[in-house]
Amino acid sequence: MPQDIFDKVMTLAKRRGFIYPSFEIYGGVAGFYDYGPLGTQLKNNIENLWRNYYILRDNCVEVNTPTITLYEVLKASGHVDEFTDLTVDCKKCKQSYKVEDIIEKGITAEKAFKENKVKCPNCGESLKDAYPVNLMFSTEIGFGKSRDAFLRPETAQGIFTDFHLLYRYAREKLPFGVVQIGKGYRNEVSPRQGIIRLREFSMAEAEVFFDPKDKKHPDFDKVKNKEIKLFDNKKEMKISLEKAVKDKVIDNPALAYYMYLTQEFLLSAGVDFKKFRFRKHADNELAHYATECWDAELFSERFGWVECVGIADRSAYDIGSHIESTDTDMYALRKFDKPKTVQVKKIIPDMGKLGPLFKDKAGKIKKILEDMDINKSGKITVRLDGKNIDIPKDCYKIVKTSEKQSGEKFIPHVIEPSFGIDRILYCILEHNYVETKKKGEEYKFLKLNPVVAPIKVGVFPLINDAKLVKMAKEINDNLRDADIFTYYDAGGTIGRRYARMDEVGTPFCITVDHESLKDKKVTIRNRDTTKQDRIKIDGIVEDLKGKIS
Amino acid sequence: MPQDIFDKVMTLAKRRGFIYPSFEIYGGVAGFYDYGPLGTQLKNNIENLWRNYYILRDNCVEVNTPTITLYEVLKASGHVDEFTDLTVDCKKCKQSYKVEDIIEKGITAEKAFKENKVKCPNCGESLKDAYPVNLMFSTEIGFGKSRDAFLRPETAQGIFTDFHLLYRYAREKLPFGVVQIGKGYRNEVSPRQGIIRLREFSMAEAEVFFDPKDKKHPDFDKVKNKEIKLFDNKKEMKISLEKAVKDKVIDNPALAYYMYLTQEFLLSAGVDFKKFRFRKHADNELAHYATECWDAELFSERFGWVECVGIADRSAYDIGSHIESTDTDMYALRKFDKPKTVQVKKIIPDMGKLGPLFKDKAGKIKKILEDMDINKSGKITVRLDGKNIDIPKDCYKIVKTSEKQSGEKFIPHVIEPSFGIDRILYCILEHNYVETKKKGEEYKFLKLNPVVAPIKVGVFPLINDAKLVKMAKEINDNLRDADIFTYYDAGGTIGRRYARMDEVGTPFCITVDHESLKDKKVTIRNRDTTKQDRIKIDGIVEDLKGKIS
Repeated sequence: MPQDIFDKVMTLAKRRGFIYPSFEIYGGVAGFYDYGPLGTQLKNNIENLWRNYYILRDNCVEVNTPTITLYEVLKASGHVDEFTDLTVDCKKCKQSYKVEDIIEKGITAEKAFKENKVKCPNCGESLKDAYPVNLMFSTEIGFGKSRDAFLRPETAQGIFTDFHLLYRYAREKLPFGVVQIGKGYRNEVSPRQGIIRLREFSMAEAEVFFDPKDKKHPDFDKVKNKEIKLFDNKKEMKISLEKAVKDKVIDNPALAYYMYLTQEFLLSAGVDFKKFRFRKHADNELAHYATECWDAELFSERFGWVECVGIADRSAYDIGSHIESTDTDMYALRKFDKPKTVQVKKIIPDMGKLGPLFKDKAGKIKKILEDMDINKSGKITVRLDGKNIDIPKDCYKIVKTSEKQSGEKFIPHVIEPSFGIDRILYCILEHNYVETKKKGEEYKFLKLNPVVAPIKVGVFPLINDAKLVKMAKEINDNLRDADIFTYYDAGGTIGRRYARMDEVGTPFCITVDHESLKDKKVTIRNRDTTKQDRIKIDGIVEDLKGKIS
Repeated sequence: MPQDIFDKVMTLAKRRGFIYPSFEIYGGVAGFYDYGPLGTQLKNNIENLWRNYYILRDNCVEVNTPTITLYEVLKASGHVDEFTDLTVDCKKCKQSYKVEDIIEKGITAEKAFKENKVKCPNCGESLKDAYPVNLMFSTEIGFGKSRDAFLRPETAQGIFTDFHLLYRYAREKLPFGVVQIGKGYRNEVSPRQGIIRLREFSMAEAEVFFDPKDKKHPDFDKVKNKEIKLFDNKKEMKISLEKAVKDKVIDNPALAYYMYLTQEFLLSAGVDFKKFRFRKHADNELAHYATECWDAELFSERFGWVECVGIADRSAYDIGSHIESTDTDMYALRKFDKPKTVQVKKIIPDMGKLGPLFKDKAGKIKKILEDMDINKSGKITVRLDGKNIDIPKDCYKIVKTSEKQSGEKFIPHVIEPSFGIDRILYCILEHNYVETKKKGEEYKFLKLNPVVAPIKVGVFPLINDAKLVKMAKEINDNLRDADIFTYYDAGGTIGRRYARMDEVGTPFCITVDHESLKDKKVTIRNRDTTKQDRIKIDGIVEDLKGKIS
């Protein structure tokens, strides 16, 4: 069977130190891959480019929270109940499958099972009795009185549970954004798509908090005439941000702004624009927390259109859930132009009744009652130490009073661009894999953008002459001192050394020859044009810095 | 009770967005902390400085492997059996304790229990029946036929299990080093020291592979006269690397070289040299894999001397274990000056016997037998698909033959500098926390080295005038375009803004005033000297780049 591009890319990736299957010497496990030296460098470069867009340019701040996450957090966020895949087991050959993977495209699981159309891909047995399986890896914290926990399915919850602290850091101004880059986990039933469907993956997520009455990014007007590429499940179209929002193709300008930023980031990372589009989720595709979601999809010859980024409007869902579960004040404040005097209902607790009834808890209950919003009628319930306590009617009075208020509280809405770094990395390799001929022989190389290329410069002495080696090593050290990742190579013919560098996407190579000793110049060779120039050694660091950033 | 420095640092850290307790709105769990915006920036800067030392300067390569690790890997590495803490439970109050934490310093656990000296710190009950508890978080991969796994206790095993691939990447030359930066996990029995004892922590580890016959770093001679600070459990001394190795204080030059690199890194990250030392592990302190280990200890007023880096000679332990468990060829080759002809014993398999006996496995067994080293006498065992198969004597012949060999195989030795990033980060905060007086009032600031400071430059318009704001924002954007992390602040008096920046360790502040509009100069103020200079806006990016790197 001829190799397809996936096979070719992965063969190169393994041979040259980009990607290795994890635990291979122990037989390997589906859904786990290691990044080798060049893969890690490429991944770091992609993540740092992402930081450039989201932190330096868009002014988000970055946080770093644990991957181990308490049960209570993920119960409140809905993941304990909703983060599932419909799964079916084969009674005959004992294989388990994700139903979505084995039914025909376009028909529902319900219909497929009703019509007895689901067969085991392994042994052909009819499959029935599908059931939802939670996809989080579970573990326990501590011993004896241990706490249940999961490995996080997304980095976002670490941001939401700190919202009140981060809002204070942002000096209580909206919009503001918080990002996190790190590992996410999904215990896939039976992953089968290489690095596209990992059980442990790298994510870069931004949670940007907006006032729901003003879902517009401050820089929206600067970019509103820019076009993005959308796919409406029938055809592709290019449309300006402004028109997309006006025509209600995209719900709000905040979402549109982050779609544009995503497109810009992906293109500058080296994604092929012809193999890029945004596709809107249908209602039945939406995650439990999202009101609207657009996927940035990248095309792979093996896998078709692959979801690499999800840009979701999570509305008030998550912060609202955590407020409900913990009674923490995680509201934002919408300031009035000038303070308003408003009529409010207040609870006046009666300690004479609360005291005997609740003993040492009475003081805390009094405080909670006094702070309580009571626009709802009906019975009063207080949440204390994780429990709901009903307060009898004779323990308090409700009075109407007027109060000066500087603003009104609300739950901010969240726009979330969530990036799957591994998928993007794979697609960048695939989109930039080039096969050509050189002197009649097969020649392959990676046309990686200099900004993400793992090695920026190859440095070679023309031959193994002590003087040339010394000069080449000095240049190599100077470049490394300037944070430029180089590869020093003195082995084999120059042609062979160029080929080695081309194959891993190195954009520039420098050769020191005998002439260099006299004229203090070296040859710099461009991967894509194969053009060679003589440049002065003196300005080499600055010259290369300009070329690779 | 007056606050000690730990309380003060952690209060500042929480208030200003460095460090938050994780899951605080759900009551929190000991051993987990979040890095807020400034903490994450500080942590990233420390890690990137580390990369500078180990990757750009020392030529190591970086890899990135999963945190979830197969049971088999950690069984082979010894962690399943050896990564334990002696633990004791209180029968009365149900608390669990790490024995080491609750017995007197200087006496052994055995002695303490024998003399009935171990009391529950919580309720005073006598404690007995201590038992070892494995400290790895466990989980399962997949469903049904699931695989046992742990969260990695160190990043190192991901490097060791890829050694043969990485050795090929390094073009089969030793020494070469591989680093990994990422999360490690240790399910502490009852962690009680804040960020010093985390259950999920950040590590930076280097595994540097040496020929055991030549444990010398190529750059050793360049630094052999440099001094490092050692503590021999009695007194501190400064000693040159060369003398330390010659006097057998440190076992070999490779270990000594990496101790020096560690010292340099820590000092450049802002550790106080007076609060720094190397201490050698006593034999009973050594981890199961180490033959010699030096800790870089940093002094904390609250915690005393804290182990922040371990620099261990792991010898051939880990690679040897994985070879033994998997029969993978993970040897290195020591090339002879010229090929040698040597007498070897060879197995000649007899397919006529193997075929009927082993059927479809016979071919594979034949291949393994032919490649086998048989210097041992006794029965021949073949390892196939994870099982040992005894081969009957009549299935093969052993012949003596002569063979040309280009070199001899050996298991490389590993020198491992392993850094606990969180502890280093905390100690940097503590060492650089300064309390002083300003105009009679208490004034505190962080004297962080510019290279690790989370914010490099505060940018202020003197007053909220449109022209000044425009100019200040332009300068801010230009600095950010040049990857310099800034903080734009237009709120409150300049004094107040300086104070806010000083408190989080920002080394420089730039103020745009009315004069700036005319002379195109701004005031730059130095945190440590509080000196103010006028500098040209034109050269500001270059000027600051020089100051912060």
